[in-house]
Formats: sequence, structure tokens, C-alpha cells
Amino acid sequence: MAIQLVTTAAQLRAASARLLAQKGGTSQGLVPTMGALHEGHAQLARTAVVQNDVVVASIFVNPLQFGEAADLDRYPRTLEADLALLDAEGVDLAFAPAVEEVYPGGEPLVRITAGPLGEKWEGASRPGHFDGALTVVAKLLHYGLPGAGLPGGGQPAYRAYFGQKDAQQLALVQRMVADLNFPVEIVPVPIVRSSDGLALSSRNRFLSEDERGAALVLSRALRLIEERANAHQPLDVESAQALVRSQPLVELDYFEVVDPRTLEPLAENCKETPFRGEALAIIAAKVGPVRLIDNVPLDA
Amino acid sequence: MAIQLVTTAAQLRAASARLLAQKGGTSQGLVPTMGALHEGHAQLARTAVVQNDVVVASIFVNPLQFGEAADLDRYPRTLEADLALLDAEGVDLAFAPAVEEVYPGGEPLVRITAGPLGEKWEGASRPGHFDGALTVVAKLLHYGLPGAGLPGGGQPAYRAYFGQKDAQQLALVQRMVADLNFPVEIVPVPIVRSSDGLALSSRNRFLSEDERGAALVLSRALRLIEERANAHQPLDVESAQALVRSQPLVELDYFEVVDPRTLEPLAENCKETPFRGEALAIIAAKVGPVRLIDNVPLDA
Repeated sequence: MAIQLVTTAAQLRAASARLLAQKGGTSQGLVPTMGALHEGHAQLARTAVVQNDVVVASIFVNPLQFGEAADLDRYPRTLEADLALLDAEGVDLAFAPAVEEVYPGGEPLVRITAGPLGEKWEGASRPGHFDGALTVVAKLLHYGLPGAGLPGGGQPAYRAYFGQKDAQQLALVQRMVADLNFPVEIVPVPIVRSSDGLALSSRNRFLSEDERGAALVLSRALRLIEERANAHQPLDVESAQALVRSQPLVELDYFEVVDPRTLEPLAENCKETPFRGEALAIIAAKVGPVRLIDNVPLDA
Repeated sequence: MAIQLVTTAAQLRAASARLLAQKGGTSQGLVPTMGALHEGHAQLARTAVVQNDVVVASIFVNPLQFGEAADLDRYPRTLEADLALLDAEGVDLAFAPAVEEVYPGGEPLVRITAGPLGEKWEGASRPGHFDGALTVVAKLLHYGLPGAGLPGGGQPAYRAYFGQKDAQQLALVQRMVADLNFPVEIVPVPIVRSSDGLALSSRNRFLSEDERGAALVLSRALRLIEERANAHQPLDVESAQALVRSQPLVELDYFEVVDPRTLEPLAENCKETPFRGEALAIIAAKVGPVRLIDNVPLDA
């Protein structure tokens, strides 16, 4: 494999500097992951490799963003397969630090707080989740900074890649970068789906065959909303919600049409009058033992 | 004047790149200030100019860290004099952004939270103060990043200068940089005092002559503790506290000997047995209308 595995911040910075110099690179891309990589991550890596001379993927399961130790423990860890996938996509560097490298003094005292945008939707059922996620993203964005400047002066472009599947995380990361002036461009990457429509997720492996079949109602319901938006019809979210509720193996948590930046629900009239504008339909449901999320951007 | 005044992040970055290239610079220093500069700030600037090829001083009165609008409004603003002082010290760039440049979307949603270390001492009487201070310091540390790399590859050294007078702020900034991996070295700069011992502060101008005389008991009490530490005597903080309380114009808030990193009070026996080790004696008091803080490092 051509990919280099580094495990410390100092190694990462030195390897980045070396690669930028070797390639005469003018840009660096960061793909933050928690491992257990699938085709959705491959799409992030592919996009980053097309857009940047040097690409770093980080693999770190962040204890800070898991509410329960059990959930953290059973999060899948598949380093060998992850490296093979990243290598196949042309990623240059895999940064897979130990917990002690990332949190040498134990849990951080000074942290990022997500604010009200982190308390709704996914945040409502996972208190503190987005504070922990943003805290580690802040660290990773600093770890992944280009290790060298341009030979002619100036700084390399620096971009970080986040999947649109975690819509609330993406909105929060964009807000953090703007609010705290991180020197990075956040690039959103569209959701990758199985041929039957199911959004790819590391958690899908925990679904039984029946549950997997039932889970398809999430993407079907979203597609219904999308078709109505494209046809400038009322979105009629209630009937789509009813479709999801008719599936006995699926326990719906939320299914709403929201502003893509603030994640505030659109005013009622946007749901009952012909839809025009930009929005995001978001859904979360428990299917068997697994909590699934999905979303579709609306633009009409 | 040779100093250049810039008011936007884009101007700052471009000017930094230009200066680093012109000077063949390999280092950049940032001196964050709220203006109303005095000899204490001059000492920050002087230290930064000695240690770096390019030096930026920021001047920004951060609304986020003021609890009361009245306190924010009466904070002194003296831009012309500030620029002259910085110029005399050899600072290259003054970054004086408007509030709209720093907070274009209103107050930030995603913020830094100082955690328990921000709730004690100064934080106890100013709730939210350190969250606001760290949030703007995070932004300034990003604004002040070197705008260019080294001609031969590699990144310039990047240092930021903070006065030891705001001991809790310094401890929190060091903790933030470590916890969130900001790519900067924090350089602490010792307190500058008037010949009579009073620690310089932008707030001293609000003291009457009598109050200024009374305020000297703070540094006198700290010196007492310092002398006992150097002589390996018990610190006997109580008697030093009594000295401060004997001054009728001074209302003591706290006067403690603490760990310099955690700001936790030392165990009682360190105060009653001969002192050895490293510590910080910290004091805060209201003198007339003005809240004053001071401290002295102990090392014996």
C-alpha cells in the first residue's frame, strides 16, 4: 500500500510537509472519520483526492461524543480494511491516533459548546453529543493543517470533507468554522445510498434482514417529499410521516422539513402551499436495535 | 509611522504574507489587546518584537466578555495613542476590526466554554466572562496565523503573547491551546508595575489619588508572601489577608495561594509549614469603583 499510517500529531505534520514539498502541492484535504469505513466514506475520500494535492484521512473513535460506554465499546473497529479502502482511493496519509495522543491530560477542560443548534433533533436524544463531536472536530481541524507553506510564499488551500448524511453535524461544523474563524473550507459531500435507497451507515451492519427491509421506508418517505418539492406541490409532511408510522418495525423519532442552516422547522404554510425555495427534509427512527438518520435536500 | 493599520481578516492575512516575504521572516507573533494600551502592553509588544520577524497587535474590545453594557461602554478607547505606542515598539501590523467584522452574524452560536477552571476566582464574580474571552481569543489566534509559509517549505513559528497579570485568563488560554491543539505557542509575559508597586492596568485611570494610595496594599501583601516563600517560611496567608482588610478603602474579594495551572488552592499545610515548590499568590479587591487584580509567582 502507498498510504502512510501515522499515529501522532508531530508525525502527521512532518509527513504533510514532506508530501507537499515532494508533490509541489498547493492544497491539502482532511477527511475526518471514525473508521468502519464504507462507500460513503470512499466518496468523501474520492472528492478530497480530486480537489487536493495531499489528502489526510483521520480515523479516531472519539469517546467524548458517546453518551454510553456500551455504545462506544460496540462501535466497529476495522483498521486494516479502512486503510485498504483509503489507499484504493488515493489517500496519502491515515492519521489514527490513540486516545492518549488526542487526550493526553484526560478529558479536555476547555471545550467547544454547540449552543442551541446542538440541542435539537439528534441532540435532543443524545445530550452533549455535539459538544463532544465539535470538540474533537476542532482538534482534528488543527491537526490536519498543512505542514508547509507554498514555495513561492502563501499558504496551501485547506479543505475538510463532511458527509451530508450527518446533516446536523455538518451544519454545526460549518457554523463553528464561521463563528471561530478556523482557517479551513468545509466541503459537504452528498449521501451515498444502496441501490434500494438505504443511506449507507456503519450502523447498518447491526440490522437483521427484516429490519433492513423495514428501514427502506425512511428513504422512500424522503423521496416522496423530494418529488412533491420538485413538482412544486405542497409537501404534506403528515402523510409521509404516516407512511413511516405504518411500518411496525420502525419507531419514528422525528421527520421534519427544516431550514438547512438553522435546522428550524419551516413555517406551516410551506408544508401546505406549493413548495418553493431551499430546505432539508430530515428523519430519524429506531429500527430494531439501531437508530438511523437520513435526509434529502429540497431545492425548488 | 511605519505600523500598518488593517481592519479586516483578509487584509491582515495579505499583509502578514507580504511582510513575511519582504523580511524573509520565519516567525510571527500576535499580541492580543483591548486597546487602552500602557507600559504593560508595551512589554508584551517588546517581547514579541525581540522573538519574531513579523508582529501583529490586535485591538478589539470584545462585547462578549462584558457582563454589563455600561462596563463595555466606559471601557477606554484610545486608538491613536495605541498605534503610536505599538509603532514605537516596532510592531508591524495593528489589526483593529469593527464588531461587525468579528461577529458578522451577530453573537456566535458555537463557542468556547471554559469549564470549571473558568467558574472560580474572577469567573465567580463575572459569570460567562471567560467563555466570552476564550471565544474571542480562539478567533484572534486564527486571524493571526502567518499568511505565508517559509520559502524553503515548512511553516513559520507562531507565538501569542499574554500578560501574567490576568493569571486566570493565561491559564485558561494555555489550557485551551493544549485541549484544542491550536497551532500556536503561548508566551507568558511578567507583570509591569509602577515604581510604587501597583500593577499596571487600564482601569487604574479610574482611581482617585486616595484610592490609588490604598490600592498599594495589594502588591505590598503579595510581596510579603513572596518574601516568606523565598525565605522558606510558612506563607501565613491569613496575616497578609488581615493586612489588606485593615485598609478601609479596599474591599477584599479573594487572596489565595494556588496551583499555577489548575488554580486550585494549595493544601493548608503548604501555608503553615515552610514553603517549597511552585505556586501563585492571587488577589482581587474592589478599590473605590474599580475592581483590581494582581498576583505573584512563588518558586522556592
